[in-house]
Amino acid sequence: MSPLSTDQISPDVVEAVRTVARNARVASRRLALLTRAEKDAALLAMADALHAATEQIVAANAEDVQRGRDSGVPDNLLDRLGLDAARVGAVAEALRQVAGLPDPVGEVVRGSTLANGLQIRQIRVPMGVVGMIYEARPNVTVDAAGLGLKSGNAVILRGGSAAGVTNAALVRVLREALQAQGLPADAVNLLSEGGRDAGRALMTARGLVDLVIPRGGADLIRTVVQESTVPVIETGIGNCHVYVDAAADPDMAVDIVLNSKTHRTSVCNAAEALLVHADIADQVLPVLMRRFTQAGVVVHGDEAMGRHAHAADTAYQPVTEQDDDTEFLSLDLSARVVPDLDAALAHVQVHTSGHTEAIVTGDRAAARRWVTEVDAAAVLVNASTRFTDGGEFGFGAEIGISTQKLHARGPMALPELTTTKWVVEGDGQVR
Amino acid sequence: MSPLSTDQISPDVVEAVRTVARNARVASRRLALLTRAEKDAALLAMADALHAATEQIVAANAEDVQRGRDSGVPDNLLDRLGLDAARVGAVAEALRQVAGLPDPVGEVVRGSTLANGLQIRQIRVPMGVVGMIYEARPNVTVDAAGLGLKSGNAVILRGGSAAGVTNAALVRVLREALQAQGLPADAVNLLSEGGRDAGRALMTARGLVDLVIPRGGADLIRTVVQESTVPVIETGIGNCHVYVDAAADPDMAVDIVLNSKTHRTSVCNAAEALLVHADIADQVLPVLMRRFTQAGVVVHGDEAMGRHAHAADTAYQPVTEQDDDTEFLSLDLSARVVPDLDAALAHVQVHTSGHTEAIVTGDRAAARRWVTEVDAAAVLVNASTRFTDGGEFGFGAEIGISTQKLHARGPMALPELTTTKWVVEGDGQVR
Repeated sequence: MSPLSTDQISPDVVEAVRTVARNARVASRRLALLTRAEKDAALLAMADALHAATEQIVAANAEDVQRGRDSGVPDNLLDRLGLDAARVGAVAEALRQVAGLPDPVGEVVRGSTLANGLQIRQIRVPMGVVGMIYEARPNVTVDAAGLGLKSGNAVILRGGSAAGVTNAALVRVLREALQAQGLPADAVNLLSEGGRDAGRALMTARGLVDLVIPRGGADLIRTVVQESTVPVIETGIGNCHVYVDAAADPDMAVDIVLNSKTHRTSVCNAAEALLVHADIADQVLPVLMRRFTQAGVVVHGDEAMGRHAHAADTAYQPVTEQDDDTEFLSLDLSARVVPDLDAALAHVQVHTSGHTEAIVTGDRAAARRWVTEVDAAAVLVNASTRFTDGGEFGFGAEIGISTQKLHARGPMALPELTTTKWVVEGDGQVR
Repeated sequence: MSPLSTDQISPDVVEAVRTVARNARVASRRLALLTRAEKDAALLAMADALHAATEQIVAANAEDVQRGRDSGVPDNLLDRLGLDAARVGAVAEALRQVAGLPDPVGEVVRGSTLANGLQIRQIRVPMGVVGMIYEARPNVTVDAAGLGLKSGNAVILRGGSAAGVTNAALVRVLREALQAQGLPADAVNLLSEGGRDAGRALMTARGLVDLVIPRGGADLIRTVVQESTVPVIETGIGNCHVYVDAAADPDMAVDIVLNSKTHRTSVCNAAEALLVHADIADQVLPVLMRRFTQAGVVVHGDEAMGRHAHAADTAYQPVTEQDDDTEFLSLDLSARVVPDLDAALAHVQVHTSGHTEAIVTGDRAAARRWVTEVDAAAVLVNASTRFTDGGEFGFGAEIGISTQKLHARGPMALPELTTTKWVVEGDGQVR
């Protein structure tokens, strides 16, 4: 989805979206009262229903893929969009895994008995209605529905139009499964009409929608953050750095840089920038550049990097200031040699997107300064940036990775889809 | 402060505010690294400095009060604005209390060792730069500075112009005390120039300011929520209900309603609406109305309430739909007799501001439905609405009461002024 324009939203679309939101709100009151057993039964029924409908889902998806191919969508994007029987099975299996996760709702976060005898406790409760605005991959549709239900929230989904037929088929199956379980179909809603206006109407439905989570490219996220009057959680822009300190183990440094950059380039926790301490550059860079050459990494480097790239026949171009702020999501990498840790910290301070920043070092003091002074959702010592992930952290699920400071920071799972309320019980206390 | 207009902000004011914010940001990096001992020493020094400057603060305040009196500000507002030596002492004492509170920064919220040996922990860290936009009372200036420092944040304060001279005097003393402690004066900043534009420039300084908290009337808060591009925490609008259930103890009901309504009328946790179950109305309302008459409560009631008000000579006018949504902040009270708990829940669902909602009942099932089904920051059983308060909850301090669901809900103290970061430590792990 490209950036939404700021001109007038069609009043028909606004009214249609607000009707969906009002119905979702009614459903959310019911969802908030469900027991874990009821929610888990519904999740398993949704998984079974998806499995049973594999054929029609794959057929619907084929329409989207064909339309994409006809309009010249590149193969790697078509691959992200495509669903075969195995992928439908994986999507259904993800719902079963959500059923196996603990229910965040009802958790007592803290509590005490006050001097006057009042008993107070802070309890996790659902947000209410959560909007998701996202791009191509249709598995997000099912993941969001499943995580929403488990956390007691109704969801309103605005997926990319490229997956429109697929998303409609998926949501139809999920809603039927909910209804068959005696639950409100309006727990899961898809905005399939209204184009971009639907997304804009969703993010301005303050009072009806409690939270909007954008997932997608930088343009989409910037637009939602700027235009939304509903509270937003910013996700997933990762200009992640790896800094190889003077005291790094050279082999470990090579492995971590390689893995951070090349394990999967299209994700937000992939490294986009490399900083190497001058004292260790000659020890690390010759090996690293050879590995870059084999992996097809394109180095956007300073002069020192250029010399090493040249020697190892690595694809190279001079680094620009813009490169320092670019989330390439490709095999491109900005790279600089720095004189010391202070210079690395200063560079990261200016260019971090607040996602994940890693140091490779054997020096305790350097590690301690890095984790204390770098301001990001995740600060790593001697580990690949690819570990900043709800699954890797053991959360069992992930709705996105927050790069903002309010409410949730880093991988977001079920607890991050809840709020709290204070329950205060007395026997007539007054002030 | 009345609502801010949406026309162009003066570029000079924008630049001046952004300069303050940039300097605050530099200071915030230093503050984030301070130990608790350093912060507590600074807080005590700030308290001592305020005490030592009592005379000049009282003199500055007299200017504000005189100006207010000259321009016809009512006595009750002048009283909120006024500072004598005793009040300056109380403001200083509040800083000493903040020094005594635990430091939220560095708290390990959760953590684990993953299967691959990675050690992860989620740690509380300061937000960075926190903006406060608020109205008359000058003690908020010192409270915000103290809570900001203790939580490792720089603060930018935009107080009401009615207290302009007082706030300037207070902040000058605080900044000098910080500097004398070797800490950056830019930890505490006051926007004293630029009028309303300064507030608007503050709330649109996204990237420089991490959080804006408005404290004041409904107009101010609505404006900030709508215009801010910096994340906002909504505070303090309380259209709080007390519902007297059929199974209430009548004496307890009278005490709780009276206390909730009349203990202090100008605060957000005062009751503004009364609902009484029809089955207990004849038992409770005659006594309650006599107490209302003595206390000077003005009942905006339905017909049934009108009969009881008439019998007890209570000030009465017919309730309007607008009354149901009004935070009177006075001795006015909207009041209705309802047929059952369902009707009470339905009424509250429509008219709650999400602050505090209380039931008086001896019935376990009714209490359980109330705390489960009412969607508010605090749900109370058999206690006065006046207990929703950071001090009463034992937090030792309060920066405001959040009525939103994101990040913080209910009384906000030191932990709510922090965010978290994930620290991940490995020994070369890659995926």
